[in-house]
Amino acid sequence: MDAGRRQYRSRLQIAADIIEIAKNGTRKTRIMYLGNLSFDLLQRYLDLLLGFGLIQVQNGDQRGYIATEKGLHFLEEYRELRRLSEMAESKKRSLERSLTSMLEEPQEPMST
Amino acid sequence: MDAGRRQYRSRLQIAADIIEIAKNGTRKTRIMYLGNLSFDLLQRYLDLLLGFGLIQVQNGDQRGYIATEKGLHFLEEYRELRRLSEMAESKKRSLERSLTSMLEEPQEPMST
Repeated sequence: MDAGRRQYRSRLQIAADIIEIAKNGTRKTRIMYLGNLSFDLLQRYLDLLLGFGLIQVQNGDQRGYIATEKGLHFLEEYRELRRLSEMAESKKRSLERSLTSMLEEPQEPMST
Repeated sequence: MDAGRRQYRSRLQIAADIIEIAKNGTRKTRIMYLGNLSFDLLQRYLDLLLGFGLIQVQNGDQRGYIATEKGLHFLEEYRELRRLSEMAESKKRSLERSLTSMLEEPQEPMST
């Protein structure tokens, strides 16, 4: 959950956000609050993540959840995806820059 | 220039395609033919690539072009971009698969 990122989140990203919050065990209300999720959406994702064994109910607390090994692996894979996407995006921008400066008209210096 | 790829090409991709064709030196008509480019578009890209020093006119043949060192470097960077994009896309698909099979209804087997 990057600060300042408030645009549309993908399903992968919401799942990864929840697993991240539940990494060391947490309460449902805290996931809802930190995950910036409506109650309905949270419940749907908790069911999904429980069903896939990415999180589990924490021992002795039916409102507590903790990431499983599988969930932590998912999180690692998601971070690797983000890393690859950012590397690709950065390389793309750099290549595009090398082809654009001649096509675009230079900006006129501001006259005062 | 992957076989079968006929959708919209990005500017980066067209530039890379031309440099690839001109890697060991080639004629303008061959670039137009293999690059699947109109005469106008080809001319615009040749001017662009010449201007940036990614290709150069081949000695003793004003209709011949060959990639420069800088052009070959651009090509390497472009291939790295493709590699990163494909890795990211493949990882994304794999993560998405791990979250979708429970949400999507299984297909009914075809009844005969």
